[in-house]
Amino acid sequence: MKEYNHTATICAISTPAGTGGIAVIRVAGEQAIAICERIFVARNEQKLSETKSHTVVFGQITAYSPRSNSNISDDNGCQLIDEVLVSVFRAPHSFTGDDTVEISCHGSMFIQQKILQLLVESGCRPANPGEFTQRAFINGKMDLSQAEAVADLIASQSESAHSMAMNQMRGGFSAELKELRSQLLNFTSLIELELDFSEEDAEFADREKLKSLALNIKQKINRLADSFRTGNVLKTGIPVALVGETNVGKSTLLNLLLNEEKAIVSDIHGTTRDVIEDTVNIQGITFRFIDTAGIRNTQDAIENLGIERTYRQIEKASIVLWLIDGTNVSEHIEWLTEKILKRAAGKKIILIFNKIDKLSAEELDILNSLFAAFNCERIQISAKLRLNTELLHKALLKAAELPQISEKDVIVSNIRHYEALRSAQNSISRVIAGLNDTLSADFLAQDIRETIHHLGEITGEITTDEVLGNIFKNFCIGK
Amino acid sequence: MKEYNHTATICAISTPAGTGGIAVIRVAGEQAIAICERIFVARNEQKLSETKSHTVVFGQITAYSPRSNSNISDDNGCQLIDEVLVSVFRAPHSFTGDDTVEISCHGSMFIQQKILQLLVESGCRPANPGEFTQRAFINGKMDLSQAEAVADLIASQSESAHSMAMNQMRGGFSAELKELRSQLLNFTSLIELELDFSEEDAEFADREKLKSLALNIKQKINRLADSFRTGNVLKTGIPVALVGETNVGKSTLLNLLLNEEKAIVSDIHGTTRDVIEDTVNIQGITFRFIDTAGIRNTQDAIENLGIERTYRQIEKASIVLWLIDGTNVSEHIEWLTEKILKRAAGKKIILIFNKIDKLSAEELDILNSLFAAFNCERIQISAKLRLNTELLHKALLKAAELPQISEKDVIVSNIRHYEALRSAQNSISRVIAGLNDTLSADFLAQDIRETIHHLGEITGEITTDEVLGNIFKNFCIGK
Repeated sequence: MKEYNHTATICAISTPAGTGGIAVIRVAGEQAIAICERIFVARNEQKLSETKSHTVVFGQITAYSPRSNSNISDDNGCQLIDEVLVSVFRAPHSFTGDDTVEISCHGSMFIQQKILQLLVESGCRPANPGEFTQRAFINGKMDLSQAEAVADLIASQSESAHSMAMNQMRGGFSAELKELRSQLLNFTSLIELELDFSEEDAEFADREKLKSLALNIKQKINRLADSFRTGNVLKTGIPVALVGETNVGKSTLLNLLLNEEKAIVSDIHGTTRDVIEDTVNIQGITFRFIDTAGIRNTQDAIENLGIERTYRQIEKASIVLWLIDGTNVSEHIEWLTEKILKRAAGKKIILIFNKIDKLSAEELDILNSLFAAFNCERIQISAKLRLNTELLHKALLKAAELPQISEKDVIVSNIRHYEALRSAQNSISRVIAGLNDTLSADFLAQDIRETIHHLGEITGEITTDEVLGNIFKNFCIGK
Repeated sequence: MKEYNHTATICAISTPAGTGGIAVIRVAGEQAIAICERIFVARNEQKLSETKSHTVVFGQITAYSPRSNSNISDDNGCQLIDEVLVSVFRAPHSFTGDDTVEISCHGSMFIQQKILQLLVESGCRPANPGEFTQRAFINGKMDLSQAEAVADLIASQSESAHSMAMNQMRGGFSAELKELRSQLLNFTSLIELELDFSEEDAEFADREKLKSLALNIKQKINRLADSFRTGNVLKTGIPVALVGETNVGKSTLLNLLLNEEKAIVSDIHGTTRDVIEDTVNIQGITFRFIDTAGIRNTQDAIENLGIERTYRQIEKASIVLWLIDGTNVSEHIEWLTEKILKRAAGKKIILIFNKIDKLSAEELDILNSLFAAFNCERIQISAKLRLNTELLHKALLKAAELPQISEKDVIVSNIRHYEALRSAQNSISRVIAGLNDTLSADFLAQDIRETIHHLGEITGEITTDEVLGNIFKNFCIGK
């Protein structure tokens, strides 16, 4: 694990890597203002040390170049690096809680690195990944689950993932945990009082009240742990297998879904296509399409050629779209459908009849009756003519089975939090069992303390350097 | 050409594309503050319209979501997009000269695009490439050559390219041109006065003074045009062909040069390797290595196998490094060297003896005497053991033949400027010739006006929408 020194003044490029119009370099720590003053001169000659918090100063970053062999410098060996805007934030009114300076420079790689180099030469240390957020945690600006939400927020690609992270960052989850912990702490102090007077066989803590509280808390922990299923799919996307024989229109359908979104996105800004490749956002929910192998319709060879691979894809999915060419229903399609649906038991299955524009009403009726025996959702579309794609959207959203979420709902999306909640579930269950068995106060106290401990792990009241190291190493540098 | 509306309020993501700790969205134009007020609420409830210039306000960007089918929103249909810092700059004290708001948000792609979308829905137009800089030009914050330097500055990858762009952006070039133009304008007004009184055969403009001025101006224009050679190589890098038979250590040498720099760069920040691929910065000067084919040492087959390709590489270079394995000098090396050097006539040639760690002093003497007949620089290195690479650096810098440059020197690096200077050279030459031939005032006036015109093209006193369109279309969006 990397050793962090929490008093050093740290610096990093906080904007995305690469060349752009502008870039921002963040400097935080006790010496932030003093260090920046060494390399920055304001045009109005205002000193940064005398600059008020939350104000912006225009000026120049200059390097005193001691290298006599440098080809380019003015008569004083002084080299102008850039004209910049410098924003000053004074402790505790900054993201980290430390004195902070943000340097907004031209977005050239050369300039960004040169300024960073100057800052390091002037006394800053390059920040480790997530170190600004870790400082915010250490300085009490946010708890650990809020700090973790910062990384989720930055990584969020869909409305739902964004919304969950935002709620968590603003402390929705923390507030719920704090409430549970404070109720438990209250009781544990009474129980521990009993331990002090153990020879007198006193019962300060009302066992009935404790039991009703423990049940209440268990219910709340259950709800939070249960929300992880939702949280996890909202964060990573709902896995969908699009299955079908070759030439039924799978790629047309997938392109249709992808392109709808692409059109919206590229209206706004040149986006990196590869990050949203094969994922589709429908009303803020991400559906992640699993790469599927086509089943080849070659009579008896079907079983061997595609279906084993298809089975494996189905296993990874929670929704299976089974696409059928309505104009070319092969003779063994019923048999194949039955096999696919049997294998997908427990998954959400949507039968999609494609190319319906080429079918008469009678043919559609026949098609429907052919599959009436299969008890699953059926929709009719034309991927090519974009007919009924909104039905597909609806069917996908319905199959996702996500509860209606309000901004105030707390949803757990972090595996570390989920594991802590599972541990808390176990220990609170032992508390309840212990109360039923009228266990002695010291055993109860032990299990209650464990519950408090696990809840505290989430918000960071209880933490180790190792845990912190693991959390922040996955952040980007500059945040 | 794209039509620009110069009164609209424009917005764009100004930081590099992608995900990062923070991103900055810039809004500029008359309505910038009013539009941002529609989507932003300050935590201290301060209104942006009442916020002083150059101050930063913390608060929330919120979307009123009219979509009833949205999965995530609070009870009022109001969706929190991000907690942001908003900087306010009031006209004319901003980059563009317009009222400007810079929104510093979390660097998630989703958030960046959502805020941009909200701004567009609230009345902004997405900015065209370079439109902020174009506004700065239109609003008189900078002239055209300064505006062009902004793009060069952002693209600069080396100290020298950066330094040239910075000098140009700060108006060094413009000041020189302005001086020349004002001297010419002075004379042209006298000459044109003569035209008004042409029947009286008056000579208001002293022909001798005019001639001495024209000669002086021509000399200055010549110096600027001549500097283009330097400016161009500083901007794009000096082309170097590394030529040698196979197995003489070409790739070891190239990797050595590349890796030295890579180590320095990656100390500071994760850089995109591909942009500096095959270029090496030595004391702020970029050397661009041309992909070279090895010459295969297979006796009589040499002529055909590699040498024709090598000739083509040499043609593109201004420096040729001819690398020779000191431990394995083939029998026809002298003959080959002569052919290479003959072909490289007019280029700077450096003979490099590699693997000198394996040679005795006597062997080195023999080697040197073998090549004494060739009148070009010789250096001895070991690429593998990194011996004498500083001699190679020195030799490359010397061969680059760049004049010692001070920050105040004006160097032309833009082909458009060079072309305008060439045209100005022609017309001022005609002025001088006309004075020698005692041409009449109207002819002289015509040529002087042309000179003024061409100088004015550079700084943008004379420009067309087409020229502007061509210049700014190559900028990145957000600058």
